[in-house]
Amino acid sequence: MTNHIQDIQTWLNTQELDGAYLSDYHSIAYLTGFESDPIERILALFIFPQADPFIFAPALEVAAIKETGWPYPVYGYQDAQDPFALIAEHVKASSKRVERFAVEKGNLTLSHAEALKQNLPGLNFVANLTPLIEQMRLIKTPAEIEKMRQAGRDADRAFALGFAALAAGKTEREVMAELEYQLKSAGVAGMSFETLIQFGQHAAEPHGATGQTTLAPGDLALFDLGTIFDGYVSDATRTVAYQSVSDHQREVYDVVLTAQLAAQDAVKPGMTAGELDAIAHDIITDAGYGEYFVHRLGHGLGSSVHESIQIAPDNPLILEPGMAFSIEPGIYIPGDLGIRIEDSIVLTNQGAESMTHTSKALQIID
Amino acid sequence: MTNHIQDIQTWLNTQELDGAYLSDYHSIAYLTGFESDPIERILALFIFPQADPFIFAPALEVAAIKETGWPYPVYGYQDAQDPFALIAEHVKASSKRVERFAVEKGNLTLSHAEALKQNLPGLNFVANLTPLIEQMRLIKTPAEIEKMRQAGRDADRAFALGFAALAAGKTEREVMAELEYQLKSAGVAGMSFETLIQFGQHAAEPHGATGQTTLAPGDLALFDLGTIFDGYVSDATRTVAYQSVSDHQREVYDVVLTAQLAAQDAVKPGMTAGELDAIAHDIITDAGYGEYFVHRLGHGLGSSVHESIQIAPDNPLILEPGMAFSIEPGIYIPGDLGIRIEDSIVLTNQGAESMTHTSKALQIID
Repeated sequence: MTNHIQDIQTWLNTQELDGAYLSDYHSIAYLTGFESDPIERILALFIFPQADPFIFAPALEVAAIKETGWPYPVYGYQDAQDPFALIAEHVKASSKRVERFAVEKGNLTLSHAEALKQNLPGLNFVANLTPLIEQMRLIKTPAEIEKMRQAGRDADRAFALGFAALAAGKTEREVMAELEYQLKSAGVAGMSFETLIQFGQHAAEPHGATGQTTLAPGDLALFDLGTIFDGYVSDATRTVAYQSVSDHQREVYDVVLTAQLAAQDAVKPGMTAGELDAIAHDIITDAGYGEYFVHRLGHGLGSSVHESIQIAPDNPLILEPGMAFSIEPGIYIPGDLGIRIEDSIVLTNQGAESMTHTSKALQIID
Repeated sequence: MTNHIQDIQTWLNTQELDGAYLSDYHSIAYLTGFESDPIERILALFIFPQADPFIFAPALEVAAIKETGWPYPVYGYQDAQDPFALIAEHVKASSKRVERFAVEKGNLTLSHAEALKQNLPGLNFVANLTPLIEQMRLIKTPAEIEKMRQAGRDADRAFALGFAALAAGKTEREVMAELEYQLKSAGVAGMSFETLIQFGQHAAEPHGATGQTTLAPGDLALFDLGTIFDGYVSDATRTVAYQSVSDHQREVYDVVLTAQLAAQDAVKPGMTAGELDAIAHDIITDAGYGEYFVHRLGHGLGSSVHESIQIAPDNPLILEPGMAFSIEPGIYIPGDLGIRIEDSIVLTNQGAESMTHTSKALQIID
């Protein structure tokens, strides 16, 4: 059993709960090592204060779960069966009392909650596992950090491939296709999210998508990308100039870079997330671009690209060693340009260890 | 306002409900035309029996929503604000009574349900929108079908590119990278799910992933892939032989092909999903391979790759013109081979219209 499952068992005992129902496949991957998105099927992990835990899964996943070395029961179900009726039987076999359960309130849908209650009359969801799991996942172990370093190295390779693929007249999608082709041919397992490449004015949409905009000399090109290494992700952004750069572009770039470096340099354990956010926001506001920095400074990451940490205004969360998050200020001026610079870091007692090392100085690509 | 939003307003009136809260971004895309995954942020559509609907969204999405031509209010929120407190104010401004709401029980989490109730004392979620939206999405409009045809054409191009990329010693990932590179270079927007390419014995894992298995002469190669065209998806599978084929491989292939063709040929309005599933399952069982066909025959698709239709044993759902779903029997013999053949079809009064046209006869690639 993993230490984390034992921790949940201990917590169930102290809270006098009858069991825990984990429904988020990311949590199940974290606790068991088995990662699979069940889409509309049911994948669940049940943990009890005394009895052994079990996994409940689509029948076609059972063999793969056993292959991971999971030493406890796995119960499969066929598509034609009622999963919650079966779950109820297994839960009753594992626990005499089935009244007070903890569930992942941040993931469990009303439909699944109601289906389980219908099959287990008297069951109540009295505790929320979501903050408990988030707290566990917040602090990375050395093994997790090593995987994130590897993912960061792959992101650095991706930047180099992407910059090399830039050419006048190419579309964002063509550059993305070439970058991902080269990267996957080199054995990189996959991207941790849809690669975002934006040229010129198009980069002023901070939540746009890679599209058919073509590159012209004098454009800025924004690359926001990440890779997956053994279940752990990277996430980084660079903005480069193509062939030439105007004074205006350089001025805005320097504001973003100053904000990014200041935040990454200042971050240390004991600081709050809100204080860190303010360092970057204040620099950009003081330079007169505050209205164009429309998002928080960063977000947590690890085995998924968005974990619970929010580096956002006024967030009182105290930053601790082992936390991993992005630092990504940006300035987006509609009809003009968009610039974002992002590293993802793991916090140590000494400050930030960045997972990516591609230069953040303004690069002009020929 | 779209007809579908009007339909929901009418339904709210007949059910004497005070409002509807849509939380699934796929539903919001379907009803409003604005598609964006808010990840851990809040994107919501509220519909009222009398007042105008509104969208509630992260501040950085507001401009993009307005650009789609959405003619009703859009309310943005910043990361530092409490979204459910703001939602409560907007709901109270739109509806005198806030007691009886419909929500998407298949999507809404307990956390969000509790947060809204805390901000709107007296509110109850008395009706489930999930089946209503699923019912709407089940029957495709001619415009939706045309987009699915285009996506199917791109999937056919993907098969041709994938088959051409096969070469002895290449890994599954290398073939995938080449296929996706060529396809995206040609302007295809993206894949509708992670492309699955499996060689030889590896294809016996029906829910495996594209990996580092290398291709050898005499292997079967399974391609399960899909593309996106203007928000609508394709999903198809072909299994081809590389350089040569054994009698055993051909025998199993013929069983799968016979089952696939029989189901696709027989499907018609008025049949149940269970009856359609049985056609393929019976053929494979009668041929002695029943234990190796471990999944349902098919699933619905449209603007996402898994919609609510299940072509599964005993499902009493009656098939109607305009429904779109996959027909994908398979035989997976551990340590030996895996074969699946899949078309996605739209049901018409005349039977199945397939979205893909790549030959299903056994192809031997040199």
